[in-house]
Amino acid sequence: MADAHLSEFELIERFFSGRDRGPGIVLGVGDDCTLLSPRPGHQLAVSVDTMVCGTHFFPDQPAAAVGHKALAAALSDLAAMGAEPLGTLLAITLPGTDEAWLMAFAEGMGALAERLRAPLIGGDTTRGPLAVSVTVIGEVPAGLALRRSGAEPGNLVVVSGSLGGAFAGLQAERERREAGGKPPAVQDASHRRFFWPEPRIALGRALRGHTRTAIDISDGLLADLAHICTASGCGATLEAESIPRDPLLAGWADAAALSAALSGGDDYELLFAWPARQRTELRVLASGLQLPLTVIGEFRREPGIRVLDATGQPVTLAEPGFDHFRAD
Amino acid sequence: MADAHLSEFELIERFFSGRDRGPGIVLGVGDDCTLLSPRPGHQLAVSVDTMVCGTHFFPDQPAAAVGHKALAAALSDLAAMGAEPLGTLLAITLPGTDEAWLMAFAEGMGALAERLRAPLIGGDTTRGPLAVSVTVIGEVPAGLALRRSGAEPGNLVVVSGSLGGAFAGLQAERERREAGGKPPAVQDASHRRFFWPEPRIALGRALRGHTRTAIDISDGLLADLAHICTASGCGATLEAESIPRDPLLAGWADAAALSAALSGGDDYELLFAWPARQRTELRVLASGLQLPLTVIGEFRREPGIRVLDATGQPVTLAEPGFDHFRAD
Repeated sequence: MADAHLSEFELIERFFSGRDRGPGIVLGVGDDCTLLSPRPGHQLAVSVDTMVCGTHFFPDQPAAAVGHKALAAALSDLAAMGAEPLGTLLAITLPGTDEAWLMAFAEGMGALAERLRAPLIGGDTTRGPLAVSVTVIGEVPAGLALRRSGAEPGNLVVVSGSLGGAFAGLQAERERREAGGKPPAVQDASHRRFFWPEPRIALGRALRGHTRTAIDISDGLLADLAHICTASGCGATLEAESIPRDPLLAGWADAAALSAALSGGDDYELLFAWPARQRTELRVLASGLQLPLTVIGEFRREPGIRVLDATGQPVTLAEPGFDHFRAD
Repeated sequence: MADAHLSEFELIERFFSGRDRGPGIVLGVGDDCTLLSPRPGHQLAVSVDTMVCGTHFFPDQPAAAVGHKALAAALSDLAAMGAEPLGTLLAITLPGTDEAWLMAFAEGMGALAERLRAPLIGGDTTRGPLAVSVTVIGEVPAGLALRRSGAEPGNLVVVSGSLGGAFAGLQAERERREAGGKPPAVQDASHRRFFWPEPRIALGRALRGHTRTAIDISDGLLADLAHICTASGCGATLEAESIPRDPLLAGWADAAALSAALSGGDDYELLFAWPARQRTELRVLASGLQLPLTVIGEFRREPGIRVLDATGQPVTLAEPGFDHFRAD
């Protein structure tokens, strides 16, 4: 990274200012703090997510995709709480000043920030190994936030979209790299699921009042379902056949595809509890959002998670979900 | 760093949970987001600060000091806005799992968090080169936040405490390392100023209603005063003799000591505008806080910053303040 004459302040000024306006934002970039004025009757939801070069993204990954995913992963946490974004703070550590990289990064992050109304309202720029830490702030009507607790025996286990696509996309990318193939087009489907995930903000908002319990699938279906079960003091049974597998898993052996859907991680779909008697409302919601919402099992009183095959027999489970200290 | 069997979740659980309670905190560590409920009539102040190993702290620096300073630097931004802390989010990137290091880090950060009521309420743990990114959230009565703008010609330029001590402490530490000397005791004065800075939360709160304009001195007096002047559309004149030099600069040549006080950075004192007719109130405030508050000059209509010596002649200025992309 080349131009050492561009200072930290100029960087912030050039790439990240002027996008800091929105409802609830009193003061954006350029002071000691950002100032927010949440709506009366609302609570604030705050989350932070870090992506480190070499751990969470490839060193030569397009900067726009890095910017997109760093924000998407953080916004996914707001979605899982049913919160609407107010704004984003970006702490970025750079080995130097590469204007082209920063421009593309800012565009990738900025496009998502604009589309989901999560404007960049503050941050910090430091020198060091490339890493991006994103803090998102959202608001949710008091008492309506979706938590990990609250799932009750008899509630349906529901998941949005499809699972395993991010894992399949990452596998495809690794194989491409080993084979020395050309990078795929940005809009390539296998590329999109892993590199350009979509936080389910609209779904999270729509779930408010219908359920108290949701999580986003970042660690993998089984791991994140276990978080809900632990917080809610219950267990769950899943039907393997009903778990929506991403089309990218079409050519995979059945066991490998199931394992990817159960444990792949990084899909950023929402997993939530839903009252068993409201299946019609669930279909109406899916239709309104134009997003598949699939019942994949139910919560049970007995602790633990069981996955059953089409004959009702327990499936031997794959390893637990993604953990930064165990896998990459 | 050794124990690879401690998972990310266990780390968070073990070191950073159970300290997440306080007024305004609806939901702390352990869900997708933290939930906050700010007091009615208040705005939220948010800031993020990153410290990278090798850039902002020595690789072998005691972990407790790293934890303290990472939080102190972030809280200093709340102080500069006149905000009171609500809570802290910690995004930490670790090369591995060193329990002793993490324990000391958590204790250093936790002690300051407890003393200044900024409990740890969320975060993220990732694997990669050692770095710490701290997001702090505070609240301030609507309309009373201290900004960089608002200083008016005729206002006094006031600074808290003394300046240049952090720079002198860093110099002493570098010389000690070059000479191969023993590490100083934690409570050593030269060590304390650079490694254990004190955010001026109580001062920031006390300034509300008396002035609209403050900043914390992280980049250096001249650089941070320039930020106020730019935002306020004015200039300033400083009297070199009145700038409170840290006792650590006692043995230094006059020009070097002045340069350290003007440009040293990392002191985390507050710099603020004060009405010229309220010198008595300033003394009362200093006495109440048991903290020196020194008038070092005044804001002027003419742009630019001039530093005058005891005879009223302009002092030739040293280089501008600390910038991560120029200095370390």
